[in-house]
Amino acid sequence: MTTQHELQVNTNGRGTYDLTSDVQDIVRASGVNSGMCHVFVCHTSASLILCENADPSVRTDLETFMSRQVRDGDPMFTHTAEGPDDMPAHVRSVLTQSDLNLPVRDARCALGTWQGIYLWEHRYAPHKRRIIVTIQGS
Amino acid sequence: MTTQHELQVNTNGRGTYDLTSDVQDIVRASGVNSGMCHVFVCHTSASLILCENADPSVRTDLETFMSRQVRDGDPMFTHTAEGPDDMPAHVRSVLTQSDLNLPVRDARCALGTWQGIYLWEHRYAPHKRRIIVTIQGS
Amino acid sequence: MTTQHELQVNTNGRGTYDLTSDVQDIVRASGVNSGMCHVFVCHTSASLILCENADPSVRTDLETFMSRQVRDGDPMFTHTAEGPDDMPAHVRSVLTQSDLNLPVRDARCALGTWQGIYLWEHRYAPHKRRIIVTIQGS
Repeated sequence: MTTQHELQVNTNGRGTYDLTSDVQDIVRASGVNSGMCHVFVCHTSASLILCENADPSVRTDLETFMSRQVRDGDPMFTHTAEGPDDMPAHVRSVLTQSDLNLPVRDARCALGTWQGIYLWEHRYAPHKRRIIVTIQGS
Repeated sequence: MTTQHELQVNTNGRGTYDLTSDVQDIVRASGVNSGMCHVFVCHTSASLILCENADPSVRTDLETFMSRQVRDGDPMFTHTAEGPDDMPAHVRSVLTQSDLNLPVRDARCALGTWQGIYLWEHRYAPHKRRIIVTIQGS
Repeated sequence: MTTQHELQVNTNGRGTYDLTSDVQDIVRASGVNSGMCHVFVCHTSASLILCENADPSVRTDLETFMSRQVRDGDPMFTHTAEGPDDMPAHVRSVLTQSDLNLPVRDARCALGTWQGIYLWEHRYAPHKRRIIVTIQGS
């Protein structure tokens, strides 16, 4: 059995957005008890991560790290049509994930206690982000 | 339903190679309308990325970034048997992806408008790269 | 057909742990001949990689690289409750993989000759790590 749903997330610009409940709700509604849940972001300037879900400073530190790793406006970048965060957003996307695959057990994603599913918006400006959730199993 | 195909890509050395049409053709031929398409590279010195497909400078900048991040011939590396690009190729592979999982909808990978599937060859020399495409669905 | 198994790996602290035989054994026992094998680590301070399996110096160099990239005790990190390796472990996890998806062919993961499946423990202290292996196919 394959079921597919689409989520739209309206971001307020760079930062992380918790998708865990949305994804768990879709899994519960799918009727799949055991199988896989796949989460896919249809963009190359936003990405997906599994991240510690208890202390928000983890995601703040992650942003600090990534901002130093991939400098906005770095003069080495030539693809700058949409501004200083344009090319860094593509690099950040490649260094993280466009898709997450999660085991489904007992009709929910079998995440660890401290694992949350986050969309990471890498652009400064608000964006509408499309996410496709596919569930396969029985 | 599971179908599996193998692609061989003959690279001309370091750089990105667009696999999007090849993968979409395999999906179309599979007869699967709704499900998942998995792309897997059977090597640890080449990898897969989803990347912006409109402006080639994005992939040039990505290469520039990665070359600075993981320096060829960096003296910290001890695994140098195959030359200065040997260990950097393994690091680049770990920092990116060996496998991509893509939702199939209406008999094609439901990529975003700007998403392309690329093989990233990390070695200087031409290589034959094997890629396994698996499609599951109905 | 979906089958699911859980592995527990008792780590001795930071380093890589070869899971290849464990995973291949689970695939063989599942009865699936053709399909997908998914490996998932239920933690955000350990991760999974596909890495060269012949020369251990590759994994030593990978550790060297990552230690320089994400400095233990870096003063930019504020999430330090569990010590200087706490936040670096989360960053390393995000830069690598929490899940690997592998094609199954002829009742085994169709890995390339030099590909091994490794758990990468990022914490200094020994940990019990839970890994869920899901196999789908026929």
